[in-house]
This record gives sequence, C-alpha cells and structure tokens, in this order.
Amino acid sequence: MTFASDNWAGAAPEILNAIARANGGPAPGYGGDALSRKVEAQFADVFETECRVFFVATGGAANGLALSVMTPPYGMILCHEESHVQMDECAGPEFFTGGAKLLPVSGFGGKLTVEGVTKALKGFPERPPHGAPARVLSLTQGTECGTRYSVDELSALCRAAHDAGLSVHLDGARFANAVAAGDAAPADLSWRAGVDVLCFGGTKNGCIAAEAVVFFDPDKAADFEFRRKRAGHLWSKMRFIAAQFEAYFEDDLWIRLAAHANAMAAKLSNGLAAIDGVEISYPTEINEVFAVFPHGVAEKLRADGAFFYPWVTPGDPAGGKMQRLICSFRTTDEEIETFLTDVRSAF
Amino acid sequence: MTFASDNWAGAAPEILNAIARANGGPAPGYGGDALSRKVEAQFADVFETECRVFFVATGGAANGLALSVMTPPYGMILCHEESHVQMDECAGPEFFTGGAKLLPVSGFGGKLTVEGVTKALKGFPERPPHGAPARVLSLTQGTECGTRYSVDELSALCRAAHDAGLSVHLDGARFANAVAAGDAAPADLSWRAGVDVLCFGGTKNGCIAAEAVVFFDPDKAADFEFRRKRAGHLWSKMRFIAAQFEAYFEDDLWIRLAAHANAMAAKLSNGLAAIDGVEISYPTEINEVFAVFPHGVAEKLRADGAFFYPWVTPGDPAGGKMQRLICSFRTTDEEIETFLTDVRSAF
Amino acid sequence: MTFASDNWAGAAPEILNAIARANGGPAPGYGGDALSRKVEAQFADVFETECRVFFVATGGAANGLALSVMTPPYGMILCHEESHVQMDECAGPEFFTGGAKLLPVSGFGGKLTVEGVTKALKGFPERPPHGAPARVLSLTQGTECGTRYSVDELSALCRAAHDAGLSVHLDGARFANAVAAGDAAPADLSWRAGVDVLCFGGTKNGCIAAEAVVFFDPDKAADFEFRRKRAGHLWSKMRFIAAQFEAYFEDDLWIRLAAHANAMAAKLSNGLAAIDGVEISYPTEINEVFAVFPHGVAEKLRADGAFFYPWVTPGDPAGGKMQRLICSFRTTDEEIETFLTDVRSAF
Amino acid sequence: MTFASDNWAGAAPEILNAIARANGGPAPGYGGDALSRKVEAQFADVFETECRVFFVATGGAANGLALSVMTPPYGMILCHEESHVQMDECAGPEFFTGGAKLLPVSGFGGKLTVEGVTKALKGFPERPPHGAPARVLSLTQGTECGTRYSVDELSALCRAAHDAGLSVHLDGARFANAVAAGDAAPADLSWRAGVDVLCFGGTKNGCIAAEAVVFFDPDKAADFEFRRKRAGHLWSKMRFIAAQFEAYFEDDLWIRLAAHANAMAAKLSNGLAAIDGVEISYPTEINEVFAVFPHGVAEKLRADGAFFYPWVTPGDPAGGKMQRLICSFRTTDEEIETFLTDVRSAF
Repeated sequence: MTFASDNWAGAAPEILNAIARANGGPAPGYGGDALSRKVEAQFADVFETECRVFFVATGGAANGLALSVMTPPYGMILCHEESHVQMDECAGPEFFTGGAKLLPVSGFGGKLTVEGVTKALKGFPERPPHGAPARVLSLTQGTECGTRYSVDELSALCRAAHDAGLSVHLDGARFANAVAAGDAAPADLSWRAGVDVLCFGGTKNGCIAAEAVVFFDPDKAADFEFRRKRAGHLWSKMRFIAAQFEAYFEDDLWIRLAAHANAMAAKLSNGLAAIDGVEISYPTEINEVFAVFPHGVAEKLRADGAFFYPWVTPGDPAGGKMQRLICSFRTTDEEIETFLTDVRSAF
Repeated sequence: MTFASDNWAGAAPEILNAIARANGGPAPGYGGDALSRKVEAQFADVFETECRVFFVATGGAANGLALSVMTPPYGMILCHEESHVQMDECAGPEFFTGGAKLLPVSGFGGKLTVEGVTKALKGFPERPPHGAPARVLSLTQGTECGTRYSVDELSALCRAAHDAGLSVHLDGARFANAVAAGDAAPADLSWRAGVDVLCFGGTKNGCIAAEAVVFFDPDKAADFEFRRKRAGHLWSKMRFIAAQFEAYFEDDLWIRLAAHANAMAAKLSNGLAAIDGVEISYPTEINEVFAVFPHGVAEKLRADGAFFYPWVTPGDPAGGKMQRLICSFRTTDEEIETFLTDVRSAF
Repeated sequence: MTFASDNWAGAAPEILNAIARANGGPAPGYGGDALSRKVEAQFADVFETECRVFFVATGGAANGLALSVMTPPYGMILCHEESHVQMDECAGPEFFTGGAKLLPVSGFGGKLTVEGVTKALKGFPERPPHGAPARVLSLTQGTECGTRYSVDELSALCRAAHDAGLSVHLDGARFANAVAAGDAAPADLSWRAGVDVLCFGGTKNGCIAAEAVVFFDPDKAADFEFRRKRAGHLWSKMRFIAAQFEAYFEDDLWIRLAAHANAMAAKLSNGLAAIDGVEISYPTEINEVFAVFPHGVAEKLRADGAFFYPWVTPGDPAGGKMQRLICSFRTTDEEIETFLTDVRSAF
Repeated sequence: MTFASDNWAGAAPEILNAIARANGGPAPGYGGDALSRKVEAQFADVFETECRVFFVATGGAANGLALSVMTPPYGMILCHEESHVQMDECAGPEFFTGGAKLLPVSGFGGKLTVEGVTKALKGFPERPPHGAPARVLSLTQGTECGTRYSVDELSALCRAAHDAGLSVHLDGARFANAVAAGDAAPADLSWRAGVDVLCFGGTKNGCIAAEAVVFFDPDKAADFEFRRKRAGHLWSKMRFIAAQFEAYFEDDLWIRLAAHANAMAAKLSNGLAAIDGVEISYPTEINEVFAVFPHGVAEKLRADGAFFYPWVTPGDPAGGKMQRLICSFRTTDEEIETFLTDVRSAF
C-alpha cells in the first residue's frame, strides 16, 4: 500500500504496448522518424493550435531546458517557494540556464497570486544592470500541494506577467490531473490563458519516461534543439518516447488515468477528513492529499507498511507535521479503504 | 552635494600616492611582486592570524569568487533578501558558482537572525539529491541597510551555520565602516566570531578598485587562484591593487576614512530625525541613512541638485517611499548642514 | 536496407520483455528499487570488481556527467579530435563540466597514441594559473572510426595519463563491440588497463535508452548523484533502465548482439574490399565500416534506397569522400549480400 | 634587466597623472560620469566610426565577455592553437560563454591562414544539433608570437569567416604594437578589414589596468552590460579606467609607447640575429622576440639576472628550446646593449 509518489506506480499497459509496437524495424534516429511526426500532430490536435514539441525523459529536463530558452543567463525567474523548480531539482534551473536567479514567492497551497507576484516584482525593481532582470514567471499546474489554478486565476497571473514583460512557463508534470479535474480544455489551461511554454508531463501519469516541452509560439523555440542535445537529452531512439505519447493520447488514456488518480485522492481525502483528529491541510483538487495526523499515527502507519512521506516546505502551515499521500492510476478502491481502516485503528 | 553612493567619492590622496610610489620600476606580474607579499603580511597583522589573501578589483568579483570555492555548483547559499549578492550583482553569484541557488531570507534592517536562518533551513530540508543542499551562509557587515551586527549576533549566526554544516561568507564591502563603528577588533568581527571567508572592501572607502578575499583557513582557499584567473580577475599588474591596500592600512587610514563617513552619517541622521515629518527607517550604525520624507520633498531636493536614490527592497517597511543617503570619506560638515537646511526649506 | 547508425535498429526483444517484467507493481523511485540493486551487482560480476554504477538514458549524459566529476570547471580534457565528446555532443562536456576545455589530439583511425598524448601535454605545459591544467584523458573504445585499442595500447595510454596526473575516462558507447571483438575480459579493457571511469553503453547495442557510468574507485564518484539530478538525468522510474541492463547481461545478450553486429560489419567490409575501386579507409574492427566508393556510386546507392552517411572529420584521410556504414544486432546476411550486389551494379 | 613581459613594466607617468586628474570630486558611478562619455567619443575618433565601448580591467575579461555575446553557449570559436584565449586564460572563454567550445587551429608564427581556417571548418561540418556550430573566428593582432597580420591578411580572414557565417573577434592586447608597426590606420586593422568586435588593450602598453571592448556594430553589443556586471567587471569608480584611456589617446601616447617597445624589440632581434649560434624563431614584427640560444646560454643569462621565459607551445618549431623576450615602453637602448653583450659573453 503505497501513497509515496505517483512515480512508484510503474507504467500503464497501453504505454508498454505502444513501445513494443514502435519497435517494428529500423527508423531514423534523433526524432527524425515518422512516429515522432505523428505524435507532434497529436499535440497540435490536443491543444487545438500549431505548436512546437520537444520530447525529453524527465520533468527536470523539461523545466530546465524550457527555462534556458526563456531567460538569459543573468535573468530572474519568479516561482512559488514550494515549486518543483525551486525545491526539488537540485538547482537544475540554475544549471540549465547558465546561472539565472530563481526568486521564490510565497502563496497558500502551492499557488501564486497576482498580488504576490506584483509585490515580488515591486520589491525587486529593474535597475539595469544591477539587479537580475525578471524575465519568466514559472507556474505549476496542478501544484505541488495538490491544488489547481482555475482558468481565471491562471489567466490573471499570465496577464500580470506579460504586463510586466515576463513570459510564462508552466510546469505541467501533473497537467493531466489538472485537466481531468475540471471541464476546461487543455488549451484553456495553457495558451488561451496566456501560457507561453508548457512542460507537459507523462511520467507521473503512467508513462515510463515521457515529457514534452510545448512552445505555443514556435518562433520562441529558438535554439531548444541545440540545448537539448548538449544536455544529453536528445534520445537517439526518440521513437520510444514518441510511442509513449501516442498511446497516452489514444482514446484519452491520459485523461482516464489522471481522472482515476484524482478520484482515488478525493476518496482518500474525504475518508481522512471524516476521521476525527485528522486534518486536511490543502484542498484536494488533483491526486495529492496533504494531511496532519495525531501524534504517532503516521509513524505507526508507516511501521505497518504504508508508504508516504512527511512534507516540509518553506511555507509549511502545519509546523512540520504534514504528510503527503499521492494516488496514481494504479491506486485501487480497496487500498484506500484498507488504509482508512488502518488509520482509524492507529489512533 | 551628493549622498548617492560612497563610490561617487573618488579616491583618497594617500591611495593615489601609494599607486605612484609602486610604479618605481619593473616588477613581476600576477601578484609575484614584493609589494603584494608585504601587503599580505599586513593582512595577517590586521587580522591577528595567518590567512590567505587574494586581491581583486570589485566587490562583485570578491563575493562571487569566494562563494565559488565555498559551494559546489548545485549547493545553496542562504543570504538576506536585501543583500548585495541577491539584489545587486545581476545573478553574479549564480554565474561564478556555476549555478548555485541563492535562498533569500528576510530580517529587519538588512540583518539575518538565528531564528530566520533556522526557519529557512528547516523549510528546505536536505533530501539528497533532490533539494539543493545548503552549504553557505552569506552575511553582510555593515549591511545594505546601514546597520551592523554586534559580535554576539555575528557569533550566534556563525554558530548556527556551522552547526547546520554551512560555512560562513562575510560580504565586507563596508567592513571598515562596521569596524570603525565599534570597539571590536577586525578579528572579533570576522574569524573569531566564526567567519570562514571575508570579502574585505576598499573601494567604497577611498580606494580606486581594491577588494581582498581573505581565507582564514588557508586550506579552504583551494583552487581560488585558478577561478580568479579564468574569470579575468587576476591583474597582470597586481602591485597596483596591493599598493592601494598598503596605503589603506598605513596609520589606520581605513579606519579613519570610515570613521569620518560614519560620523557624517550620524550627523545627517540626527539632523533629519530632528525635523518633524522625516522618519529614519533603520538605525544609522555605519555610513548610510535611510529616511522617509514627506510627499514631494525628496523630489524637490533632487530638483535642487542633491543626489540620492530611492530605495525599494523586498522587505521594504516604508511602502516604496524610502530614500537612501550615503556619506563617504569626502563628505563635509558643511554639506550636511546645507542639506539639512535644504530639507527644512523643502517642506 | 540501412547502415545509417546502430541507433536506427530499435530494441532487442529481450530488452522489451525485461521492461514489461519490471512493471509488476509499485516500486520506490529514483533508483531505490530492488531491481536497480540487483543490476548494480551484475555490473560488479561482469567487471570482477566492486564499483559504483549510475544509470542514465543517453551516452552524451553519461560522458558529460562522468567528466564533470573528473575535472574542475577550469580543467582540461584531452580527447581524440574525432571523438564523440569533441564532435558530436554540441559542446556537452563543456556544459556539464561548467566550462572545462577540450584539447583535441589527432591520431589515425580514431585512436590516440602515447606519443600523441605526450606531445599534446608537452605543448600545453602547466603554468598555474594561466593554462587550464590537464586533468583527464578521454578515450573511446571501440572508436568512432570502427577501430579498437588492444589491451596493451589501452594500458600504455592509461599509464601515460596517470604519470602526468590525469585520470582516464573511457567512452564505451560501443564497449560491447570492443569486448565482443577480442578475447579480453571487460575488466581487461577497463580498470585492469587503468581506466578510472567507464561510460558503458547499451543504447547502440539493442537497448532503448540505457547507459551506465561505472566508477571503479567508488570514492571518486563523489557528488555524481547531485550532478545527475540537477541535470535532469535521474529517472523517477529508474527501474526501467535497470531492467534493460538486467536483460542485457542475461546469458551474455550484450556480447551476442555485439558479436553479431561485428560479424556483419566484417562481412560487409570484406565484401566491399573485394570490389575493385572500393577502398576501406580504416581497419574494420568492430561494427563500423568506412569506405570510399568511386565517384557517383554512393549517391546512386542512396538514390536506390540505401541509408548511410558521408563521414567528414578533422583528420579525414580521404578528402571528404569517406562513407560510414554501420551494422547492428538486426543486420542480416541478406542485407549485406543485397547491398554488395547493389554496389557492384552501381559502378 | 627584464624581458619577462610587457606587464612587468608598470605604468607610464601620463597614465598616473590622468588618474590623479580624474579624482577631482564626486562623480557618478558605474560609468555614468562625464569622463567616460568623453573617452567613448575618443574611441569613435580614433576608429573613425561610431562604436559602443565598454571598459574592463583585464584582457581576459575583455576577451571572455566579448565572446560571450558573440556565441551561444553551445557554439564554437575557432582560434589559433597558441592564442591567449586558448593557452593563457585558464579556460576563461569557456567560463564566460557558459561552455562554448574552442577549436584550436594551427598556423606558423601565431597567425591563422584562410587555408587553415577553411580546413578546420570543413573538418567540423555543421550537423545540427550534433556538432557545436561554429560562430566566431578569434584572431590576435599582434600575435602571441610577435608577428602581425597585414591588412590584406586580416581582410581575407574576416571575409572567409563571414562567408562561413562566423563573426570576427580580435584580441588586441597588443593592438597598439600592431598599429605602431605599420602605416595602416586603426580602422584599417579592425572594422574596415571586417573585425566585428575588438578587445583593445592598454594594460600591456603603459596603463595600469585598462582594456576596452569595442563593438563596431552597436546593435551587437546586446546584453554586454548585464554580462559585465554579473561577472564583477563593472567598476563602480569607472572613471579611473576612463582616465587611463584619456591619457592613452592624448597626443598619440599609445602609439608612441608601442613604437618605442617595437623599436627596442627590433634592435634586440637584429642584435641577436647577428650573433652566431642564436636563431630568431619568428619574424620580429612587434615588441616580442623569440629566439633559440645555444645549449646552456639561456640558463647562464638567467643566472646572471636577466628575466625572460622559455616558450613552449603546441606548434613549437624549436623542440622546446625557444625563449621569449619582450620589450616594453620602458625598455632602454642601454638594456638592449648590455643584454647583447651578456649574450655574447655567455657562449
């Protein structure tokens, strides 16, 4: 019984099948194959617009490379203080960009607000060439705290960024969960809201290793292909990433997998909320649940074999006592029910 | 009448004389000259300890190069959110370190506190290799806000840093002002308090371009000389930086210049505080005064020919209305008095 | 009929099966899974020594990350002027190392010689801190020109490097082909000869995306895991690289696949050599054939549907007329025979 | 008696006087002063064209920063294998550019030829995104070997570079010597010949620390000011670099100092050439003499107090026996004569 991370879940069978199917015979390397072409067209369909798409294997690579074409090496990237780019990539964005500065901004539940961004920009006025000039606003959808931006929230943030001369990067490692959680189209949650570059994740949602950097303005993709290559992120057998996305989009597999994970999280969150003494820290809007258990309970559950991590962050509202529980496409009703029973008996 | 910056003041005559004196005949390049040796010994005297000293021309170079040997490229540097390394070096530390992360921490008046640092570290727990591991605490003495750490405050911060496995960098662009402002010895305000590496400034206090990176543990200087060279900061005619420090230390010139600047700032601060409607934002402990004038007054003063800058920072307590006024070794009593008169008549 | 590259060949069925097998249920992420442990032990078996092994997805990542822990950012790496690190990674080693210098050295057939390396070192004497200090000798086995070093050649080069204070990096993207081509053990062609760090390739030889950086002195692995993470090369679902290597080593699959590719190349090379007017440019010692065809022949073959690339390099002995033909685990006797027939009729 | 380097010579008195003169009173920092403006206009006069000029303190900084705006971080810079950027800056260009690749090209006497450059480019064909794309040709005038390009040679090289899509960087640490050695105007030896960016040196020719990066196409200066700042090369008291150039250009001081150094070198070279058993290795065209002495002679001269360095380079035509002797604005006829006498008696 694991709620450790969506990346513990392995791959969906459809993804493996697509990989096997793609292995039919020789094909050009480095993305020059027909399947890569086809999948790029699928992206245009899904997002209802022309776009340039680049495949990589990890979310850290997608974010770092995307940011590296969005800011000069001396530029500044505003991001949530609990975002993946800030907390979980071992200074990866600084590496890929050649030393850009990340300015962490706070906000409840992993979400930035227009007020927060505006205040941060005001406190770091442009005084060329002294301060690093702000160039990018990096958002995450769904967030690291299991929440999601509404279309309106996202649009307002993008507008504020553009008005200040920043472009907008969206870390979409859990973009599928954010889409599946509402009724907005992928386009509504990205370019129509003002997102310039989307890092579209597959890995956390049933792929093996598949992420796509999507440039909604193809002209902005600039030298991405050189940067991807020199960072060792251009696969020679690229068709095997393309194949994962082929299956991912087929019959809306990506939405189905994410919707299931979201539903399991909702069930878990509701079940926990109903237990006296358990507090839900953030609204459960995608596939992540953040909860505070009474003293000793989390330890007991872990001792009994459940996997989940304590969650400590800069803006931690729970004084270091929060636990993160993640559901995946593989999580079952039974697991949730068993876990809830275990929680109750751990008191 | 200028209170724009201590770097508007030019050079003290003693500094220029020393440069001329150093120009006697041929001498080995790149710091291999006798004068450089002599001045390194002066540093050991002033700081009452063996140390390794490297000369560079700017404070940004000193800070960036010092930090680059104190952290791996994926490490994290905690610093004040209003510090020079964070706000004024155009992402220089990120550049010199090869992409280390700066974590800005807040604190009143440009000063970090043990509580603030501890909270920041707790919110960014080590989870190798996911988060950038914290490796350096960067402090500033005197601060960008015109304040200074007491020996006790400094010692407590260094202890907290060391306990957490961090080494301590001290940006001492205004170290002279901090020393001159109290009765603690240079050693007390640096290595005896726990500082590992000091960037010792001369430029803001009467030199032309002279900064020294002082390693109190010579073994930690490691590959500094390679890094200085490749960054273009090894002067071929290094004796001309050494000469500036030679004069700087002679008859305590550095202390005398700084004490004068401090005294002028105190006079200015007291004078302003005595004017109804002017608020002093931070304690005036070195040569910088931060004040809020009534609406329209600063603009009128500037229109009348006074130079000083508005000061907006992330932790701005004054809602964007603060003005920064800096005194230098060249500031005169008359200037202060004239300015105070002008302020009064500008209401 | 393609001789374009070994990476056009897709994956061996055993590799795909192992990936499917590894997908049994949840498993810890980021290499914390049991399969990764097992495969690390397989490496120790194959190489008859303790070692530290890190998995990544591409050869460029393996080389760049390996080099980044072997040299400081201002160090110098000697490599063949036609090596992959020099010619084919878009300045990737410079990126990963934070700006180390590559010093290209010439040598016939992609191979360095002790004389060549010694001359290069002598021409770039250490004058700290002026010249970038030489820190690494990077070799390739099998080479980009289809040749391989004998154990004696390799040992002599490693000895020369170590004597000069350099450590030795071996780009083993085609290490399997080099092993399969002779009777030396993997250990003989790596650490016993003096190699410090081996980039062991799987991708060109039937894997999807599987490379391993092998540190024969585990202490030298240092901060590799931080560097891999920040470069976006730590897979969350790492078991899917481990699985590829599991199959790769099973029943000597890696040797069998490589031996087949080598045999096909030998057949192709011999067949071409027997055709009047075709010249073989380098000895065919692994799975690559370099040949010069009479004027117009290569173009005609390509027009008829054969895939292979012209090969132009700094030391090009053929004045820009060389063609590279690569065989893979998938190449068949029939393909070779058909191609040879086509060549003969293209005259 | 020193022929060690032109940077042993200290500063010309005119330079020191100008620095003192510039110290009259407060002036804006960071190059916002009137003197900096005036000197920028002097550059336009000297070069007979509008240009953008940036001051820094060292040649390594000038070269590195100039190159960093001329190539993307994955680009390639062709340079002479014995050039300063390749041999003497501790991988500085790689650092400033964020990891660009330097491709060393050989050529007699420190000079590149169109043939050499063309061959190098042909051997490293563009195969995006695999090879690092060539973006800059870096030339040195006068060269590290004491030679200089004629206007025709320079023009032909620039044309070849531009035809191949490269821009041209000129390392002019000894540009004054190159100008003084002939009758071509500064413009003829730079932009009229096709040079895009010139690093104009003052330090080796009587300044303390003064170099200027001159962009002949102001639009290409792009983000230079940000890059200079973050690298710690923007002086706060910039007027003290400007002052050096003010004096440098006054009454053609720069030409007079360089012409003297050149004349001394010519005298030294001719004197040595007249001694049986001494060989001059390269034509003495500026202020550097390269010579081979009979066995034991150089050692004896050094033991007797003469300073000069052995000179070993990748293309060394003398098997490690070459000595470099440099004359400066301070070298006297007597020194030359004494030295020549010493040489004769050292046999």
